Amino acid sequence: MRISDLGEFNLIERLAAILAGGEVQPAGGAVGLGIGDDAAVLAVPEGREVVATADALVEEVHFRRDWTGPGDLGWKALAVNVSDVGAMGAAPLAALICAALPPELEVEWVEALYQGLRECAAAYGCPVVGGDTVRSAGGIMLSVTALGSLPAGRAVIRAGARTADLLCVTGTLGDSAAGLALLHAGETPQSRPEYAPLFAAHRRPRPPVAAALALAGTGVRGMLDLSDGLASDLQRLAAASGTGARVEEERLPISFLARRAADELGVMPEEWALRGGEDYEYLFTVPPERFPSLPPLLGPLGVTATIIGEVRREGLVLAQADGTETTLPPPGFAHFGNTGRR
Amino acid sequence: MRISDLGEFNLIERLAAILAGGEVQPAGGAVGLGIGDDAAVLAVPEGREVVATADALVEEVHFRRDWTGPGDLGWKALAVNVSDVGAMGAAPLAALICAALPPELEVEWVEALYQGLRECAAAYGCPVVGGDTVRSAGGIMLSVTALGSLPAGRAVIRAGARTADLLCVTGTLGDSAAGLALLHAGETPQSRPEYAPLFAAHRRPRPPVAAALALAGTGVRGMLDLSDGLASDLQRLAAASGTGARVEEERLPISFLARRAADELGVMPEEWALRGGEDYEYLFTVPPERFPSLPPLLGPLGVTATIIGEVRREGLVLAQADGTETTLPPPGFAHFGNTGRR
Repeated sequence: MRISDLGEFNLIERLAAILAGGEVQPAGGAVGLGIGDDAAVLAVPEGREVVATADALVEEVHFRRDWTGPGDLGWKALAVNVSDVGAMGAAPLAALICAALPPELEVEWVEALYQGLRECAAAYGCPVVGGDTVRSAGGIMLSVTALGSLPAGRAVIRAGARTADLLCVTGTLGDSAAGLALLHAGETPQSRPEYAPLFAAHRRPRPPVAAALALAGTGVRGMLDLSDGLASDLQRLAAASGTGARVEEERLPISFLARRAADELGVMPEEWALRGGEDYEYLFTVPPERFPSLPPLLGPLGVTATIIGEVRREGLVLAQADGTETTLPPPGFAHFGNTGRR
Repeated sequence: MRISDLGEFNLIERLAAILAGGEVQPAGGAVGLGIGDDAAVLAVPEGREVVATADALVEEVHFRRDWTGPGDLGWKALAVNVSDVGAMGAAPLAALICAALPPELEVEWVEALYQGLRECAAAYGCPVVGGDTVRSAGGIMLSVTALGSLPAGRAVIRAGARTADLLCVTGTLGDSAAGLALLHAGETPQSRPEYAPLFAAHRRPRPPVAAALALAGTGVRGMLDLSDGLASDLQRLAAASGTGARVEEERLPISFLARRAADELGVMPEEWALRGGEDYEYLFTVPPERFPSLPPLLGPLGVTATIIGEVRREGLVLAQADGTETTLPPPGFAHFGNTGRR
């Protein structure tokens, strides 16, 4: 059944029911009033500030319907914003979803999209409390706003890195790029089940938000989430902090599966780690004496932290295993952008 | 110059500069960190809750570029969300803007759009603190999230109306519909300068947010903003409150100019007032004994409040001057909708 057959009012009723099913408790506050009034009402515990971020996803620009299922798209649309909330050291509070949908779209597809949104909302304690569902004259467009809360004055900003800080990342880098490369090569989770974690990293990224909150609590200095690739995002961190950085290539945390896929596809896995993008891990800096306290903190959360280099006074360089240093070039791929925030 | 000529990074720099020019102070809190990090940080004064609302605007569905100038579009995109914030009794705090733009769009057009956004942000104390600017594969799409704050537990909800409350509206109804009808008839502010206020009501709506906040402070019971037209929005208020309502047609506040335009175009101005939509005034209910306290409160703000009927136990009726009552039918025009919130 198409949206135009069901009717818009009925569609909206169905979507609201999906979002409301089994109440999602926000991690960083409480919902006073959800979907159904002029605006949602959110209670923020005393002494906490609010963070807010938004991203837009456009069909044929950011995703293709034949490559991305609706459930994965819904998950990812919210997950990338929750990732930004975590990057400030904030706990998710609520999300608002605007969706422009062509009338000929299948209702089942839209329902699966909202189920994916809801699954992510439940996984991160970020209930969807409002939004807008409108007709599109072209393809699908989604925009998601995510809100979070954190102790007042404790936001972890990009500008916080200091010379001689250790440069660290959570998790592994390049898994999402490996999954995308496999899709480009015509593979699927069905054809190559052994690569399931790589496909999943691309389709249902799981930013380690709990780890970001734990890191924020220990006094890490600069932090951002890795969305455009380490080379590009490190440049942002360094520019904001007025520093440089040195990355040691051999320290880049690359998973066994990503290495295997790279080997099979004849590419360098370090390229994925540096420029693949969509890792949704956290890049952060910490004074050397503080680092030993991190693994015991992150371990119980199932998250690793790897030192990949250090913050320098100036210059962005990549050091090879043999000691040669090359300038970290700007990324080859540029998004159409982002009002300076991603 | 087109966006594709300027380059995306440069466009985003320019837009951020427009939004940042001459800092806008939020009415309902403070900006800890604006555009430029993973998320904005907002301070909410102690004892206050946060409200959040979002709307999407799609080219060829909600606006046409040949009828709506970019500055007006930017203004209106934010104003309709600020209106929702006010309808809860909340003071504007901040906004996030997502824009999907075709690469062949003129840069000057986009700059004018963001100038309109900024003018509205300044007028209402609702600074733009984030968002996303992406490439569109089709037409323009905008989505705006607006946040506000209000004293905890004091949100004015739709469900608050009680039987025997007076039914009231701020300002006049039908001016925006009159402006739109004049445009449809081929008129412009240049051809008919005497109708400038009607064109302005359509193009640059000015929701009386300060009045809504004042009303919220006096214990009005149910309130929402008039976006889809009185007939439609009253139905929402009544449904949410579990009541009916009776509107007296001759009490509908219709401006002299709207009456004159209606006369000229051969239509009934009451139709505009009931079903025209986009009034961005407030519909609210108040116990009869409280009404006399309102005009002295609203007068200094330059806002009128008119009693248009009363809340009844059940049934939605429109009473004519001769005493005959007709059922208030559902609106003829249905948006593709809104996740239950507008």
